[in-house]
Amino acid sequence: MAQQERAIRTRQKIIVEAAKVFDEVGYEATKITDILERAGLTKGALYFHFESKRELAQAVLDAQADVLPEIAPHELKLQEAIDGAQVLSRLLQPKTGDPIFQGSVRLTVDAGSAKDGLDRRVPMRAWNEINQIKFREAQMNGELLPHLDIEAVSWMMTATFTGTQVMSSIMTNRQDMPERMADLHRMLLASIAVPGVLARLDFSPERGRRLYEQAVKGAARGALSGGAAG
Amino acid sequence: MAQQERAIRTRQKIIVEAAKVFDEVGYEATKITDILERAGLTKGALYFHFESKRELAQAVLDAQADVLPEIAPHELKLQEAIDGAQVLSRLLQPKTGDPIFQGSVRLTVDAGSAKDGLDRRVPMRAWNEINQIKFREAQMNGELLPHLDIEAVSWMMTATFTGTQVMSSIMTNRQDMPERMADLHRMLLASIAVPGVLARLDFSPERGRRLYEQAVKGAARGALSGGAAG
Repeated sequence: MAQQERAIRTRQKIIVEAAKVFDEVGYEATKITDILERAGLTKGALYFHFESKRELAQAVLDAQADVLPEIAPHELKLQEAIDGAQVLSRLLQPKTGDPIFQGSVRLTVDAGSAKDGLDRRVPMRAWNEINQIKFREAQMNGELLPHLDIEAVSWMMTATFTGTQVMSSIMTNRQDMPERMADLHRMLLASIAVPGVLARLDFSPERGRRLYEQAVKGAARGALSGGAAG
Repeated sequence: MAQQERAIRTRQKIIVEAAKVFDEVGYEATKITDILERAGLTKGALYFHFESKRELAQAVLDAQADVLPEIAPHELKLQEAIDGAQVLSRLLQPKTGDPIFQGSVRLTVDAGSAKDGLDRRVPMRAWNEINQIKFREAQMNGELLPHLDIEAVSWMMTATFTGTQVMSSIMTNRQDMPERMADLHRMLLASIAVPGVLARLDFSPERGRRLYEQAVKGAARGALSGGAAG
């Protein structure tokens, strides 16, 4: 293995193990030594990649929007938006999901303190951007009702995903998240999509589960990631 | 002042000061001594009311749904639902809002750790119940489209409020929350309300601001609370 490739693998491994610890106990209570122990690394090896706990947490936050695996394209862009959220809600399931995404989501939602210096806006901006691109495509595709404010719609999709995640996490350890996302999308898209498109959308969590399994298999073939594929 | 009344006031004061510290630094980093200092109390006085930091935090959590002040009733129950969410988003504004609500919301959304023993489901269940009552009233009033699952709608309203709060908090320190709630309600209620009712609803944050000011004035007249009235 080339030295550079090894360095990339080590960096990725550190991020995964750090994300797991952040997810379990939160930023404040996380100790660098716990991360080292899990990753089987020395302090020196870690500090070669990250100067501080803060820098490591920011790397986990910044990686959040990269976890969304490639999902099969669909003629309807709104279906792609639904599929993306369904796959993300699978990535959030304990044990079977993606540790980087889980740790990163916790870091985002936990309010932290002003002095921790973490920028939680990075992942939120990234999701907003992903949503804006998707909804603009849907608009150009003639799938949306006229006069929609795409910025407001995208913001809302990001916020409602976040709220569903938080509440599902509190009430059922995220087990009902795919079902709740489906309920939410059925309602929200009824005021966004033109009727002919609405009738063709598949909101079922069962579709999400299938796509997730395909996406994870696809990622396992190509990726270096210790995430969903690991 | 009767002894019992003094005890109630002290208990309330402790809850308010605790909520402020929880809001600033989170549960994990909160120190009992910081709360004592702010409340101007001795350890003995605090432990007379609360046995531990955990018990104090649970009291703040449990009080969350009690902060919603009395809002003028409206012929349309959906308008009352909108008004409630708008007033809550004012209670979340820094400086002018309600410290108990702010601290309690942070305790709810911060994931904490399994060993902190806090039950974050209490406030979520309470909001769900409040929403269910309101939407059942709206249903009996003929305001809702047929075939709606009231449990699912209520869950969704609680979750979308939560998500709007989290995202608005990250992006603008909650300053845009009234405006974002209005956007969200406009979209969501379009797939819930019958058209004749939808056309009569006032989503404007300006209405929310007026109602909030009235509600806070009303509360200041009667209440013992150190919350919105303080």
